[in-house]
Amino acid sequence: MSGSGPHALEDVSGQGWARARTAPADLTGPSGWQDLAERFGTPLYVYDGDWLADNLRTLRAALHPALEVFFSLKSNPNRAVYEVLRSAGARAEVSSLAELCTVLHAGTDPGDVVFLGPGKSGAEIEACVKAGLYAVVCESFAELALIDAAAARLGVRQRVLLRVNPARSVAGSRLTMGGKPRQFGIDEAAVLASGALVRAHRHAYVAGVQVYLGTRILDAEVIRKNTAYVLDLAERVAEAVGVPLDAVDVGGGLGVAYFDGEHDLDLAELAEGVNPLLEEFHREHPGTRLIMESGRYLTAPGGTYLMGVRYLKESMGERFAVADGGTHHHMAAVGIGSFVKRNFPVELLSRAVPPDAPRAPWTVAGPLCTPNDTVAKAVQLPELEVGDLLGVRRSGAYGPSASPSYFLSHGYPAEVLVRAGTAYLVRRRDTVDDLLSRQATHPDLSGTPDAR
Amino acid sequence: MSGSGPHALEDVSGQGWARARTAPADLTGPSGWQDLAERFGTPLYVYDGDWLADNLRTLRAALHPALEVFFSLKSNPNRAVYEVLRSAGARAEVSSLAELCTVLHAGTDPGDVVFLGPGKSGAEIEACVKAGLYAVVCESFAELALIDAAAARLGVRQRVLLRVNPARSVAGSRLTMGGKPRQFGIDEAAVLASGALVRAHRHAYVAGVQVYLGTRILDAEVIRKNTAYVLDLAERVAEAVGVPLDAVDVGGGLGVAYFDGEHDLDLAELAEGVNPLLEEFHREHPGTRLIMESGRYLTAPGGTYLMGVRYLKESMGERFAVADGGTHHHMAAVGIGSFVKRNFPVELLSRAVPPDAPRAPWTVAGPLCTPNDTVAKAVQLPELEVGDLLGVRRSGAYGPSASPSYFLSHGYPAEVLVRAGTAYLVRRRDTVDDLLSRQATHPDLSGTPDAR
Repeated sequence: MSGSGPHALEDVSGQGWARARTAPADLTGPSGWQDLAERFGTPLYVYDGDWLADNLRTLRAALHPALEVFFSLKSNPNRAVYEVLRSAGARAEVSSLAELCTVLHAGTDPGDVVFLGPGKSGAEIEACVKAGLYAVVCESFAELALIDAAAARLGVRQRVLLRVNPARSVAGSRLTMGGKPRQFGIDEAAVLASGALVRAHRHAYVAGVQVYLGTRILDAEVIRKNTAYVLDLAERVAEAVGVPLDAVDVGGGLGVAYFDGEHDLDLAELAEGVNPLLEEFHREHPGTRLIMESGRYLTAPGGTYLMGVRYLKESMGERFAVADGGTHHHMAAVGIGSFVKRNFPVELLSRAVPPDAPRAPWTVAGPLCTPNDTVAKAVQLPELEVGDLLGVRRSGAYGPSASPSYFLSHGYPAEVLVRAGTAYLVRRRDTVDDLLSRQATHPDLSGTPDAR
Repeated sequence: MSGSGPHALEDVSGQGWARARTAPADLTGPSGWQDLAERFGTPLYVYDGDWLADNLRTLRAALHPALEVFFSLKSNPNRAVYEVLRSAGARAEVSSLAELCTVLHAGTDPGDVVFLGPGKSGAEIEACVKAGLYAVVCESFAELALIDAAAARLGVRQRVLLRVNPARSVAGSRLTMGGKPRQFGIDEAAVLASGALVRAHRHAYVAGVQVYLGTRILDAEVIRKNTAYVLDLAERVAEAVGVPLDAVDVGGGLGVAYFDGEHDLDLAELAEGVNPLLEEFHREHPGTRLIMESGRYLTAPGGTYLMGVRYLKESMGERFAVADGGTHHHMAAVGIGSFVKRNFPVELLSRAVPPDAPRAPWTVAGPLCTPNDTVAKAVQLPELEVGDLLGVRRSGAYGPSASPSYFLSHGYPAEVLVRAGTAYLVRRRDTVDDLLSRQATHPDLSGTPDAR
């Protein structure tokens, strides 16, 4: 079991991700992984709860104490993962009714929850207002009117942060979220001119802004620039619209290295860059909550996708290991949605292999009937055997919940969280009955088949 | 309601897919779509059962009578969809335990079922043999030994078709499945040399071959070439290995036009190309079952993904409709996995609009917090209103089951099948309880949050 504190990532794979920020050590060694596989079956997601908590505490300790970290449940909606992060000081950023229910059922103070999303349903807005969330992040003036109406019906006032689509984008993120035409938020120019409109609502009161400039950022300087831009924009909006700044949500976008040649964010450099900005803003606005959203950074390195090898084969000179896991549980590792196939870090976990043991390129395929179902292409691994356990590392974010779990009707995997040496089953594996039980049959539809 | 028989697709969208093969007519007109949305909610998948049956009967009537069409449930695992296709003469090709259970629970003759997949589990192999499936399509010699062992344990013999990875590929498919190093099947050279190995198994008996050369093929000539190649290969394998040809599975890959500039397969041309080959083979091997697999072709044009418009907005000069459906239900339309964003056919369904009504480019976004969640980019649509119903056509294949339905915890949509004017709810929508109930909580994991 890993002790407390982050660990340097050992480059056992030869894939060049040795400089990665921090990552959980081998949870339990080969026998531990075998034990997990025997108890819970494969494929299996395994989260290192100690690492999750330690990593968040490390982040919070490095950044300005006025900055609150809101965990984006979209990155990993498992309640146990959330509870561990909450125990280490995370607040919650949710984007659907089920995510909201997760954090409320866990006993979260609604004053530590914000709700985001460009297409909120009436039911979602109603639930936010009823729960008394700290803020609804509002993405259009039409939505502002809906929040106002819901709050009026319920006889309450609801704090709203306006999501601003900034007039310019900041370079350096993997997926730009602002500075161009977008379904998110309200264009900066429209926000700056919205004073009368905003003040016309009596039950939804605007008291801050949210801006999300991009995601998967690995360069601390980009985050510094983004933060400076958002803090400045917040002041301009407050002045132009005539609203208080109860909170500024600076977005986030803290990235994680997955691939050869990528390097994790330098936390010291990040702190050095953003803390003076936060300190200056905090001095001028001492009552303003400073919110940073984070999902991937808090969870990705803490998760391992554990797969069993079912078949070994050679095809036209290439060696294949066909595993029991693939696209349906880990679309990001398979790389669907990426322009080029790059390998997540993959390791043999169930056997200790001498460091100088020969390695060869293996393609690790999943069980689906599509050539796209390739977890790793020509990855360097020791000689494999049927029954070996392979781990896809850095898999704690955008794993099964962001994958087509019903594809070929295999269903959602089991999820296990290990904390202080104990493994907890935190989500059970889908059964065939689970997969089929929501379908309904109708006698009218099952006619006699045509003759052959 | 559409009558019987296929319909020419009307190009109301101006997107250039007017020449598409056939497609369901507007199921019920604007009031019908509104009625479906009111009864079942949106987002909603709607399948035209009459079209599904008619289309399959048309295909079967056009192709050689000896050719049997096996429906690939991976394209749409809904039992009602399968039952309608079965009533029109489809056999079943399945790839997982849940798909196998679907067809067996529906009362399918196991003699009309084949099971495919490169990573079959022991439980899947056991279930196939126990059920007495017509054939297991075997993808490696290691799997052949497992099938043999399972059949020996159960005291039966199990027919096996060897999946062959051909030595060459045939151009013209969107996704090449053979002719290069692959996790599928056994290399042609290894199959041709496998006589002694194959004959060493007494309970798993090889009696045919399967070859799958590619998918999404829109050119009938490519399918003719593939079919000729497979039929020839089957004869060469039977002779070299010394096995009978109880069946030859020629794969399939019949495509469907989705995008501007694509044209549906010409069925007459397909029949003209493959029927003489099938006739010749059938004359020489009158006892051999000829199997064609088809999924997309049988289902895609028969399905519509119905979404409600929640918000309208303009951002930096572009017009956005934010709908309640998106990536989590229809990843193919969103285009994740494609190199360029191309629009599926999208129509306004809930209001009749004069043909000469002005149209403008709209970007139709979904409710997820990612800019990738874009169903259609700059698609020509009439002036939209909140509450309008938009339909993504040709959505009957690789819809919700091939999408990350848990993403942002929104869950699986409802599915409705319309047959002879009656709408049947064939899968109910996921509830929040459905989404959360398989998670488990543990008191040890929910510590007291750190102080702020």
